[in-house]
Amino acid sequence: MTNYTTLDNAQALEYVKTQTQLFSDDANLTCYEFGDGNLNLVFRVADQHHNSVILKQALPYARCVGESWPLTLDRARIEASVLIKHGTICPDTTVKVLHQNNELAVTILEDLGHMQILRSELCEGRKFDHLASNIANYLAHTSFFSSDFYLDAQEKKALVQEFTNPELCAITEDLFFDDPYRVCSRNNFAHGLSEQVTKLHHNNALKLAVAKLKSKFLSAPQALLHGDIHTGSIFVDDKHAKVIDPEFGFFGPIGFDLGSFIGNLLLNYCAQNARAKSLPQRRDIHAYLLKCIQTCTSEFEQIWLTLAQTHTKDLSFQTKGYAEYFVKQVLRDAFGFCGTELIRRTIGLAHVADIDGIEDEHARLNVQSQALQLGEQLILQAPHCKSKEDLSQLLLSLLL
Amino acid sequence: MTNYTTLDNAQALEYVKTQTQLFSDDANLTCYEFGDGNLNLVFRVADQHHNSVILKQALPYARCVGESWPLTLDRARIEASVLIKHGTICPDTTVKVLHQNNELAVTILEDLGHMQILRSELCEGRKFDHLASNIANYLAHTSFFSSDFYLDAQEKKALVQEFTNPELCAITEDLFFDDPYRVCSRNNFAHGLSEQVTKLHHNNALKLAVAKLKSKFLSAPQALLHGDIHTGSIFVDDKHAKVIDPEFGFFGPIGFDLGSFIGNLLLNYCAQNARAKSLPQRRDIHAYLLKCIQTCTSEFEQIWLTLAQTHTKDLSFQTKGYAEYFVKQVLRDAFGFCGTELIRRTIGLAHVADIDGIEDEHARLNVQSQALQLGEQLILQAPHCKSKEDLSQLLLSLLL
Repeated sequence: MTNYTTLDNAQALEYVKTQTQLFSDDANLTCYEFGDGNLNLVFRVADQHHNSVILKQALPYARCVGESWPLTLDRARIEASVLIKHGTICPDTTVKVLHQNNELAVTILEDLGHMQILRSELCEGRKFDHLASNIANYLAHTSFFSSDFYLDAQEKKALVQEFTNPELCAITEDLFFDDPYRVCSRNNFAHGLSEQVTKLHHNNALKLAVAKLKSKFLSAPQALLHGDIHTGSIFVDDKHAKVIDPEFGFFGPIGFDLGSFIGNLLLNYCAQNARAKSLPQRRDIHAYLLKCIQTCTSEFEQIWLTLAQTHTKDLSFQTKGYAEYFVKQVLRDAFGFCGTELIRRTIGLAHVADIDGIEDEHARLNVQSQALQLGEQLILQAPHCKSKEDLSQLLLSLLL
Repeated sequence: MTNYTTLDNAQALEYVKTQTQLFSDDANLTCYEFGDGNLNLVFRVADQHHNSVILKQALPYARCVGESWPLTLDRARIEASVLIKHGTICPDTTVKVLHQNNELAVTILEDLGHMQILRSELCEGRKFDHLASNIANYLAHTSFFSSDFYLDAQEKKALVQEFTNPELCAITEDLFFDDPYRVCSRNNFAHGLSEQVTKLHHNNALKLAVAKLKSKFLSAPQALLHGDIHTGSIFVDDKHAKVIDPEFGFFGPIGFDLGSFIGNLLLNYCAQNARAKSLPQRRDIHAYLLKCIQTCTSEFEQIWLTLAQTHTKDLSFQTKGYAEYFVKQVLRDAFGFCGTELIRRTIGLAHVADIDGIEDEHARLNVQSQALQLGEQLILQAPHCKSKEDLSQLLLSLLL
């Protein structure tokens, strides 16, 4: 990375002008930086006809804490490469990569400025009928086609090497599986939750179940994951969902992605207890979110089984019943990982706007308490569920 | 590998003389090749005082089928590197690496010519009291210290990359988990077994259990394995056992190594029904082999749990009960993998001298039939065993 230097507006514009053919030579380009993230610079470069692209540059440190937390630039390579891999499989659900420069940690992407970030939309109570199916389709296809069912073992081992992502995985390992379950300076929760958190820290059965999930996260390279698919990593409009930001991508347990997505829907579900403006509205959005989770789980399973039936290349995995066994395990994992997402987003370092944006402190505390309990019970009980129906029943019983 | 060239006796001698300081300058060296393997040249280089070393050079093809089956020379790097890693942890049980040259695929090793190959000794009915403990100690220590319990996740991911061994793993994937369970030209069994083999090919429950084991072999990088620890990869004398030949080494499921070792003891157990010269002798060697398996399993578990209690660095895996849960799963896996070893050594491409060396055809067929049945039942029933005691009971019930 010897030639790495961070770009300013003028340099980003110049880069697009001279290093790509994305605009015509006589285009009159403008450029501004609008990143609100902590890890990257994000520029929008547009011509006089409102054609635009996004130039994203990874920073060599986490901006939220100054330059003191170094972070590998290699994540830009990972992110662009995951998008390209996933984009080949699911072009409709993956933001398009237009240009990649690993040395500068620069990726140029299609501009999704006409779409909205799912998290903000859900916070406003808006619903998207296509969302669950789109995400189920994305998760099932990208995971199946990068799994042992489909890939030749040697090809998969090469990909596992290519997508080894130790630094960003370490963040997840700490924030999901370690910090929330012990006293840790990175944890972040209101005093009102202290009693519940202390109880959680002493819940050995819970910590045992979390250890099993962590073990899978560490050592189950089942498929090329997005690695961070929360509702802030998804753009939506009336017809489409587009996934962005897979810089945490790596070969891991398939249930992790599905669980992260469902977990974020459930965080919003809890938040709606304080956010919804009326009881009917709350019922409506609750019903929508539950339906989303059920549709996503059920279509994920169905698509996976269909793909397995028609596209499994591994001789052994063609054995009758194996795909069904495998997907059931993935769903159980997903609900467990979902539980860890609920907990870490409530008491760990990084929270979600769905809950933190609730102004009334008492209401916020109630929501957090619910999210925490829900997370705990999912982690504890999901491993005992024998089917998708069991998992669905479990979730209903915990929410009603 | 541009400078690679195979060595003859004179060149091997010259190599040791000029490229190492293993002998004094005025040593009068002799050298001869005595490899009986299919994949490597093996030279013994000695001086006039009978000091000697072994020079092993990997061939770029499998010799048994001419030069038509190319095989990566990178396995020499893997083999030497595994020996060095394992040797650091268990110097008493690992052959010592004296010199390594990846370009020539050459490794120079301590000469174990004063020791015997375990397989030949067992075939002759000889017993080694220390064997089970030594191997249990080796397997427990090498696996624990390369596992997620002990290694920092980033360090482990780097090692997983370093020990990615796609070509040799592919051999195991085919020979252990695919070929024996379907009609395949590589399979090799007497006509007298046909009926039993056809039944096996139609046993869906068995193939399902094998698929689960294959999935672990493909995607469970728990620890740095030997990868091929059969009784032909172990030298013994009255006091020591020394492990050689880990060219199949990679990060895989810990139970695979333990299962391979136990599987080879059980192949000998079956063979003794035809080999032992008298009933008391047979009872004696049977009792010895069973004791070996029980001691090895039990000490492996005990050492692992002690290491986990005292040396686990991962915070989450320190949770009470997690190590116990993990090791139980390893033992279940081991007995399953053991079953696949019994089957593939009986009807697959590569057999064992223990059985193939039985001269009487009818007796040999009986032994093979027993090995096949034993393998099937271990694969089917081991996943349901709740403890080491259950596994031990299962084995006894299948042998008596």
